[in-house]
Amino acid sequence: MKIAILGGTGEQGPGLALRWAMAGEEVIIGSRSQERAEKVAAELNAELGQARIRGLENPKAAEAAEIIALTVPYSAHLSTLESVKAQVQGKIFVDVSVPLDPDNPRRMKMPPAGSATEEAQAFLGPETKVVAAFQNVSSHLLRDPQHAVDCDVLVCGNDAEAKKTVMSLVAKMGLHAYDVGPAESARVVEGLTSILIRLNIRYKVKGAGIRLTGLPR
Amino acid sequence: MKIAILGGTGEQGPGLALRWAMAGEEVIIGSRSQERAEKVAAELNAELGQARIRGLENPKAAEAAEIIALTVPYSAHLSTLESVKAQVQGKIFVDVSVPLDPDNPRRMKMPPAGSATEEAQAFLGPETKVVAAFQNVSSHLLRDPQHAVDCDVLVCGNDAEAKKTVMSLVAKMGLHAYDVGPAESARVVEGLTSILIRLNIRYKVKGAGIRLTGLPR
Repeated sequence: MKIAILGGTGEQGPGLALRWAMAGEEVIIGSRSQERAEKVAAELNAELGQARIRGLENPKAAEAAEIIALTVPYSAHLSTLESVKAQVQGKIFVDVSVPLDPDNPRRMKMPPAGSATEEAQAFLGPETKVVAAFQNVSSHLLRDPQHAVDCDVLVCGNDAEAKKTVMSLVAKMGLHAYDVGPAESARVVEGLTSILIRLNIRYKVKGAGIRLTGLPR
Repeated sequence: MKIAILGGTGEQGPGLALRWAMAGEEVIIGSRSQERAEKVAAELNAELGQARIRGLENPKAAEAAEIIALTVPYSAHLSTLESVKAQVQGKIFVDVSVPLDPDNPRRMKMPPAGSATEEAQAFLGPETKVVAAFQNVSSHLLRDPQHAVDCDVLVCGNDAEAKKTVMSLVAKMGLHAYDVGPAESARVVEGLTSILIRLNIRYKVKGAGIRLTGLPR
């Protein structure tokens, strides 16, 4: 599948790109700057030992892909959505954003829509299937393919089929996904990230995560 | 330590009472009805094989205890707080409440304060140390002492010493507690419960829980 990762030069993007490319997916790193996108793509390809990742400006990346993931810092959430609104219509849009308080990343500052995911769904309109995923996965662990990621992926959104597609993309990375309900559940899923950041700071680690228990895997 | 469990005849109360009593704590089941409190206490004592648990009306239970836990359904949250406000002043108050949507327990219906925990802290005033805990632990597993509880306990609140005391009471049950920050974190911790309920329903199980990963235990 062709997957664009908008803001793919940031924290969470390169790790997702690398792990999807390793699983055989075709990945496009999106950025506001084509040059930066190409630079990160080249670095990741060098690491992979093959050219599975290319770099494009965000709107062109979204245009070229079937599935679009958004991994920008929350401050760029709405402006990035605006820049690709036309290109993502009818597609699956994976929102990885977390509305952290810019003054304190251990706190959330939820948008009026309730969560970034709900905000994206409202902004992009009903034709685009917004799915939340990967917010709780440590970018640090994700970026190091030698390292197992000890974290489940909570997936939510209003379109059941779109969630299934995203869950299969989670499985391709070797991670386990659980469908935790509609877009509204993203209030909790996004919020969990601030708690994991808080625990990372408190325990001086970089890979706090969660596992669900008592459920079939 | 003398622990009162208000609403202790309900879902989460008996399991907490049993496990604390097994760990040697002195437990008082609180209820609106003294008769009902005594009945549940007697049943639990029979199960324990010794009389470590007694039953009292909520205000008397709160009066007699050093630590007060609240396990009523959210619909009785404010009225129960009101009934024990005088008796809990200066003490540690463990809020286990979860503001589920009465029309759909897979959804949250958060109070204006942000969470039940913040509501309790605001209502009881600064002299009472409100700590959130145990919301994510399956009442089903908790109630069966033969069954290990595969779930971490996320503890939050604004008083660091009170959190430490509650965390030691979690440890006495054989569970692991993590301090996840101030009372505001309860928005996420309480919210997680609706997601676990959703997963219990979807997978037809009764014991979905969470574990934190990547952290020292």
